[in-house]
Amino acid sequence: MEPIKQFELSKEYLESLQLGIELENVDFIRESLDGVNVADIAAILDELTMQESVYVLRLLEKQLAADILIELDETTLSKVLREFENTEIAVWIELMDSDDGADILNLLSEKDREEVISEFQDRIKSEQILELLRYEEDTAGGIMAKEFIRANKNWNVIQTINEIRRQAENVEKIYSIYVVNNKQQLLGRVSLKKIILAASETRIEDIYDEDVVSVPVHLDQEEVATVMRKYDLESVPVVNAKNKLVGRITVDDILDVVQEEADEDIQAMSGISDTVDEYDSVIKLTRARLPWLLIGIVGGLLGAGFIGFFEEGLSKVTALAFFIPLITATGGNVGIQSSTLVVQSLANKSAFDNSLSQRFIKGLLVALLNGLVLSVFVFGMIVLLYGNEVKFALVVSIALFSVVLLASFMGTFTPLVLDKFGINPALASGPFITTANDLLGLAVYFLVAMSLLSI
Amino acid sequence: MEPIKQFELSKEYLESLQLGIELENVDFIRESLDGVNVADIAAILDELTMQESVYVLRLLEKQLAADILIELDETTLSKVLREFENTEIAVWIELMDSDDGADILNLLSEKDREEVISEFQDRIKSEQILELLRYEEDTAGGIMAKEFIRANKNWNVIQTINEIRRQAENVEKIYSIYVVNNKQQLLGRVSLKKIILAASETRIEDIYDEDVVSVPVHLDQEEVATVMRKYDLESVPVVNAKNKLVGRITVDDILDVVQEEADEDIQAMSGISDTVDEYDSVIKLTRARLPWLLIGIVGGLLGAGFIGFFEEGLSKVTALAFFIPLITATGGNVGIQSSTLVVQSLANKSAFDNSLSQRFIKGLLVALLNGLVLSVFVFGMIVLLYGNEVKFALVVSIALFSVVLLASFMGTFTPLVLDKFGINPALASGPFITTANDLLGLAVYFLVAMSLLSI
Repeated sequence: MEPIKQFELSKEYLESLQLGIELENVDFIRESLDGVNVADIAAILDELTMQESVYVLRLLEKQLAADILIELDETTLSKVLREFENTEIAVWIELMDSDDGADILNLLSEKDREEVISEFQDRIKSEQILELLRYEEDTAGGIMAKEFIRANKNWNVIQTINEIRRQAENVEKIYSIYVVNNKQQLLGRVSLKKIILAASETRIEDIYDEDVVSVPVHLDQEEVATVMRKYDLESVPVVNAKNKLVGRITVDDILDVVQEEADEDIQAMSGISDTVDEYDSVIKLTRARLPWLLIGIVGGLLGAGFIGFFEEGLSKVTALAFFIPLITATGGNVGIQSSTLVVQSLANKSAFDNSLSQRFIKGLLVALLNGLVLSVFVFGMIVLLYGNEVKFALVVSIALFSVVLLASFMGTFTPLVLDKFGINPALASGPFITTANDLLGLAVYFLVAMSLLSI
Repeated sequence: MEPIKQFELSKEYLESLQLGIELENVDFIRESLDGVNVADIAAILDELTMQESVYVLRLLEKQLAADILIELDETTLSKVLREFENTEIAVWIELMDSDDGADILNLLSEKDREEVISEFQDRIKSEQILELLRYEEDTAGGIMAKEFIRANKNWNVIQTINEIRRQAENVEKIYSIYVVNNKQQLLGRVSLKKIILAASETRIEDIYDEDVVSVPVHLDQEEVATVMRKYDLESVPVVNAKNKLVGRITVDDILDVVQEEADEDIQAMSGISDTVDEYDSVIKLTRARLPWLLIGIVGGLLGAGFIGFFEEGLSKVTALAFFIPLITATGGNVGIQSSTLVVQSLANKSAFDNSLSQRFIKGLLVALLNGLVLSVFVFGMIVLLYGNEVKFALVVSIALFSVVLLASFMGTFTPLVLDKFGINPALASGPFITTANDLLGLAVYFLVAMSLLSI
């Protein structure tokens, strides 16, 4: 027996498909794609030309085409949508889950969006989608779907199964059935397993579980992810201010949120100002990278002015210049280490975080230890290897020690301050702080040198 | 009606609980914790002293205590386990899912592990756990559980429901029922929803879905996460080389994997060599940070030796020293940006990645553009602000341009090479490459200066 595996996209497969498209061999194309998972078909479309993709999407069954559209990455999707009439898009959107439909509408221009909405046939679906459009993209409301199964607490198991049957087409994955009162307020949940194992006359009231974790509709998506991770939830109900059940979020959407947030943090750390990837255009990539590089350059120019200020001393003791990279690099490394630790602890907030003073003392101790080891090492190396005089070695190592302390202080507190002001604290590990640390390091270095060497 | 919310851990609650423990008021403690989610109880234990935690865990129902243990973070868990007898631990482990039990056994010393295993009463559970211990921690086998529902394709719906009933206690969350043949080979899946909606005599053979994505038992956990994200799976069956169904992985475990891998990458980027957090001891934190700092220092010392090599030229044109930080910082920034983009594209491998030459050309174009803008800007600024002569400004901007090209090249290819050798490519964004880039930048700078200024 052939083992069931993931679909492997081969060059040969792709070429035969493209030949089929060229020859407009509809049966061949449909057969080639038969049984292939929608995520894989989406990956295939990514490899085709826009014309070929459009041709294939028009050929396929509408539901299948709608499912594929959802799986396309945003850039491709926007381009594909431009090739279709708004009437075609409206039909697809009505075949999607409400959250996916709302996401697609959000990609359209306002004019197109209004036109697509005016084409909707299914009143309930269009109301659901319009409701979702109201919420901020990055909140629970923005990622929840309106498709879920709810049961009134007064129902029995048979009535609940009938509701599942009625909704079977709309609600693809059922994890839990949410139990509500007559005001549609969330009371609890009951698992499908319990429904299967209960007698048909059993009342929902008697088997439902009151321990249900819900999230408010305005909660930030990152916090929704934290809640779902903490409680190991496969889906979470979303409630409004009056505890009315308004939607549900499934864990597969959260998986994407976690990955996106991590990617965002890493990009913030590495000074890329826009969410870009390798496949974006040269211009877009350059634009995303230039701002932070320019900030670095401005920092460098300031640094140059700064060192220039000590030109006289520098011309007397040229060796001072040798250790500039050592000082700035160490300051940068220490700063990034410190801020990364704080950023990660901010992301995993617990009820009783270390207080500011605890953070300060601990950070200070670590910095003292690191600084001590590094500066003793550097002192020894300068004396041994470079044969410089002891006084000079002392200047470098004292400056290094101070820079480690300062950079660690900056690295710890900048993300805390950014977080207080609602700015992504990961930015603190990025080029901005590194640049600031460079300048600080230079200042400390030359001040120590000038005062100790009396130049 | 009181809305159902997440549990909020307050200082008052904690203090009253601690008082209860001090007074050994068993009823009060049990009542305080009644209805509180296990993840929240675990967070509470984190705030108690070890003695208090041990006292509480012994008080609670065994199943509840076992559930709480799973939720503790690894450091706390290891400490807690040391306070209990191996007989007690054995009882708890038998009440856990096999994957959680195996994780706990992995935390024990070999001697304790063997003792705990010898205490097991439940033959099936202990066989399951022993099987899981065989797999590498970071593979599908290492994170899968042995608890899942399988149905033979020859069964009907009633037989399947009976199997669910039989396993109801063991298998907490049921997403899909996996369909196997007589050799236990995976044929497909059937959703609980379908079981509920089908007539009881329907044969599984007639309703199951052959389109099931499975993963091999040795697949890296990161790739399991990629598969589950791509296909939006809530659980995935794990098969051995003969396509025999050996376990399943649920998405809540994958959520943790995604977060862990992201944290690991960020730590690699920021030069923290061990997985540490703010709560670790000063010594552990220092030890995790020192190695990369020392590498940076060694780089700095090499850089010093390097600049020293050009001492004569430097003493003639002191202004050369001013722009050292500008050159090294820009090299570092460009290198980190480039490597981050490559690392992220490696993480989202698609079937047809950009080829090496495509990457090279695109990277080159972006670097040319960035380099051009930056060096023109720097040229203008030096002439305008610092009033240096044009020739000197030309030296700095030509050096800057070359450094941008070189750093971008290094940043693009280092992660690719690391990845080829099976090393985490995120390390390429870390201090090691930054240090290498610093040295390269200095070399370029002084070589350009020496040849153009003929000093």
